[in-house]
Amino acid sequence: VERTRVSFVAGAEGEWEILRVVPVRGDDLRAAARLARVEGSELARPDPSASWFLDGVRSHERYTESHEKQQLVAVQPTLGRPEATHGVLIPLRKSAAWWGLAQDERRAIFEASSRHIRIGLEYLPAVARRLYHCRDLGGEFDFLTWFEYAPGDAPAFAELVTRLRATPEWDFVEREVEVHVRRAPFTSPPRP
Amino acid sequence: VERTRVSFVAGAEGEWEILRVVPVRGDDLRAAARLARVEGSELARPDPSASWFLDGVRSHERYTESHEKQQLVAVQPTLGRPEATHGVLIPLRKSAAWWGLAQDERRAIFEASSRHIRIGLEYLPAVARRLYHCRDLGGEFDFLTWFEYAPGDAPAFAELVTRLRATPEWDFVEREVEVHVRRAPFTSPPRP
Repeated sequence: VERTRVSFVAGAEGEWEILRVVPVRGDDLRAAARLARVEGSELARPDPSASWFLDGVRSHERYTESHEKQQLVAVQPTLGRPEATHGVLIPLRKSAAWWGLAQDERRAIFEASSRHIRIGLEYLPAVARRLYHCRDLGGEFDFLTWFEYAPGDAPAFAELVTRLRATPEWDFVEREVEVHVRRAPFTSPPRP
Repeated sequence: VERTRVSFVAGAEGEWEILRVVPVRGDDLRAAARLARVEGSELARPDPSASWFLDGVRSHERYTESHEKQQLVAVQPTLGRPEATHGVLIPLRKSAAWWGLAQDERRAIFEASSRHIRIGLEYLPAVARRLYHCRDLGGEFDFLTWFEYAPGDAPAFAELVTRLRATPEWDFVEREVEVHVRRAPFTSPPRP
């Protein structure tokens, strides 16, 4: 649970080739050739030539309860599996109405009515997932979620996000973008 | 629930005169003459001559449930009351063990066994309080809590923190400092 910083940097370099950028709700993000995911103890200072960058923090769980955490830990794969050559970055912002709710109200929408954790569990270990928080950092988004999967699991990924978007929780989403990527050839081996 | 940034800057200037700095647990903070609390949409860039500065974010509630929120809203005073000439800044860091707990485990320690919210309510409206989060910002502390009260309520403040420190929640506190201040004479009127 140590804090790890992350910067997603879109530009000319990076181990992921950007295939397409899909604005799901709200404003798009600019197109670029490559995406880099840089984790470390400090935020990466992106090259000024970058098209855009998004910073986040890998931090503690905000809604997951202990029994759920045990289930997740039992089945979630690591990032960087050799077969997981496809990835998606989903930056997402929730509304002021969401953030104005109390913790129990948010948790009730998140799991009791939307079954966010339970739905995600159904797609493990096929679709690896890492959540970064960025609301407190003051950028345009509240969360950055990173997914990795094998090409054959692309339909599973699509089904996962379709199901989540049909839940009451998504009534509070006011901006969401999908950045689809593929591991670029001739780059260094995947990081763990 | 808009995010507001805060910087507490200790140095030669600021509307609060620093009376004393008390290391409750772990390392101290350096002494300085004055303390400024600067809220805004961006973090203040402190003067390089500052002794130290601590950044935080006024953000959404992390444990408060709706019934508790209603109770708090009903009794909590604003900051900047003319009679509240005394203040205390408490920067605090919790342990890795705390952050490794699931949300329900943290909530259970926070309120079910430690009664953090209930204890705080007993000292309202005498002791005004504003919580800032800073764990995701990557500094030395996880929280910055700011208290304001009239001189006659100093014993109530001392009792409040004594009671909180006796709870199971405080077993997870690994650093805590009290910075006691008094509104400096001949400064601009209190901000709301």
